[in-house]
Amino acid sequence: TLAAPAIAQTLPTLRWRLTSSYPKSLDTIYGAATLLSKYVGEATDGRFTIDVFAPGEIVPGLQALDAVQNRTVEVCQTALYYYIGKNPAFAPFTTLPFGLNARMQTAWLYHGGGNELQNAFLAKSNVIGFAGGNTGAQMGGWFRKEIKSVGDLKGLKMRIPGIAGQVLARLGLVPQNLAGGDIYPALEKGTIDAAEFVGPVDDEKLGFNRVAPFYYYPGWWEGGPTIHFVANLPAWNELPRPYQAAFEAASAYANSDMLAKYDARNPAALRRLVAGGAQLRPFPQEVMDAAYKENIALMAEISAKNPEFKTIYDSMLAFRNEEYLWWQVGEYPYDGYMIRARQKG
Amino acid sequence: TLAAPAIAQTLPTLRWRLTSSYPKSLDTIYGAATLLSKYVGEATDGRFTIDVFAPGEIVPGLQALDAVQNRTVEVCQTALYYYIGKNPAFAPFTTLPFGLNARMQTAWLYHGGGNELQNAFLAKSNVIGFAGGNTGAQMGGWFRKEIKSVGDLKGLKMRIPGIAGQVLARLGLVPQNLAGGDIYPALEKGTIDAAEFVGPVDDEKLGFNRVAPFYYYPGWWEGGPTIHFVANLPAWNELPRPYQAAFEAASAYANSDMLAKYDARNPAALRRLVAGGAQLRPFPQEVMDAAYKENIALMAEISAKNPEFKTIYDSMLAFRNEEYLWWQVGEYPYDGYMIRARQKG
Repeated sequence: TLAAPAIAQTLPTLRWRLTSSYPKSLDTIYGAATLLSKYVGEATDGRFTIDVFAPGEIVPGLQALDAVQNRTVEVCQTALYYYIGKNPAFAPFTTLPFGLNARMQTAWLYHGGGNELQNAFLAKSNVIGFAGGNTGAQMGGWFRKEIKSVGDLKGLKMRIPGIAGQVLARLGLVPQNLAGGDIYPALEKGTIDAAEFVGPVDDEKLGFNRVAPFYYYPGWWEGGPTIHFVANLPAWNELPRPYQAAFEAASAYANSDMLAKYDARNPAALRRLVAGGAQLRPFPQEVMDAAYKENIALMAEISAKNPEFKTIYDSMLAFRNEEYLWWQVGEYPYDGYMIRARQKG
Repeated sequence: TLAAPAIAQTLPTLRWRLTSSYPKSLDTIYGAATLLSKYVGEATDGRFTIDVFAPGEIVPGLQALDAVQNRTVEVCQTALYYYIGKNPAFAPFTTLPFGLNARMQTAWLYHGGGNELQNAFLAKSNVIGFAGGNTGAQMGGWFRKEIKSVGDLKGLKMRIPGIAGQVLARLGLVPQNLAGGDIYPALEKGTIDAAEFVGPVDDEKLGFNRVAPFYYYPGWWEGGPTIHFVANLPAWNELPRPYQAAFEAASAYANSDMLAKYDARNPAALRRLVAGGAQLRPFPQEVMDAAYKENIALMAEISAKNPEFKTIYDSMLAFRNEEYLWWQVGEYPYDGYMIRARQKG
């Protein structure tokens, strides 16, 4: 260790505002924004600070991206697939049905060409994105009645937004879009028949097990969705490199810390849900296969209309197919053995 | 954005040296050390630099921990399980046979009490550890002849160091410890009959497929080993908090970046190995079950003699059993469906 005399620094004091699409109650997600803020602030000795705001404090949750585009705030925490109304090409950077699991999604973004495609695409909206969290594989949602066949989906009103809703609509389901807080009363009254949200940790907070006991898996529409930090591009480019580096490292920390928190908390939440009446059910093979087929058809339709989507989707798809080649050798047999060993006791 | 006038800083200029246990040729691992160095240097505007050294440049690879303990260098990149000769309680922070997969290992360290146990234990050696990378599930190694039963392990000379070697010795195998570069000639000459190293990316570099074609999986002794950065504790405590924060965030980035690199590169490496003659084989169920049983017995023996090991092992074990409860619902069925869908084409 060579200690030199103190040197004068000329880095500016900067204060950014971050608006989150997620309420503080979803602390596993919201906590990733506060982790980013903490580490950026500490690493820069308090010279570059990021203040974190909940939805509604500056703009509503789903206007986070717009607020960053027009520099109302410098950065947001959001899921890019919320913005498929602007362009479906936002979606693959979060996740797609039958897409990548959490590790693969990070690997695609970091080392599979995903980040380059993402930021070339986002630059057109004047923003830049950073993977900042992942929930892991989500659950398939809560149903008031059991699903035994594809026919049981017909006419079913389910809270399921986005592309997954479009896939299920092709099987006769009627997708609904409700904010988190509105789901429970709608399920209780029977206004809707089913709802998906996230997984045990977050679902438990909303109490779905009391009104829609059948809890399905796997959540084939979200195998490992990335939550992003999205910054205004000119604001990002104005940052001194030390602040960019602190931000990049802290967002990568947030990216794996959120997943680690979900992984650490989901088992106990699942136990409590089952003790509280949740009945676990795998989706029938017939339902999985029908959804898989309709998803391929939907992706082809979107790709035919939208070359930008097609380029991104094709990259993700090629990466996925290669990853699962390796997974069936390296990871899956290991996990499979451990699951069976645990069951035997 | 509020830009204030430039302010004077009083943080010292510090230069640390990092000695790695891994050669530059294993660039997936070594690259995590250079990533740490890059991000710490950049985030601190070049005031806190970490110079990275390969094994032998300062000390040999397996003396990395000692060099940090006596402050020959301030930090190293190593695997804690190399030091089971000092105390087997080092091992669980890297991995144990039939232990945690990569995500679970990070979740245990970050949010399952692992880091607290680790650093209470390491403080007795005057050091502090940071998860700084993971290889993912490793392969079960290369064999000159097929393994069809537990009996086939008897008398087999295999390069497999550490606790896994002790487990296999209980089944009659004769474990050997050879450095990476010595494995190929020993296999070629038949001095040894089998060898494990890491997985496709690293194994390919050593050319094992040409001399021991049977490539087994899963690598039940390393489901998701953590590579650590280990710092001298007084040196760490002397760091200003901004430097500690930059180091913590950068090591977390390295932790997930290494895994992402392995995940992105393993599929193509596996394809090339198979094209080059590697024949993939799952370990027979009988071999897996016998190893599982002997591992439990060995862990019990070590626990009986070493209460420090027992405390750490019990924490890991309880975490593992809870995790696989969740995995069999959330992750495993998702991956399983995707693997089967890919096989169907």
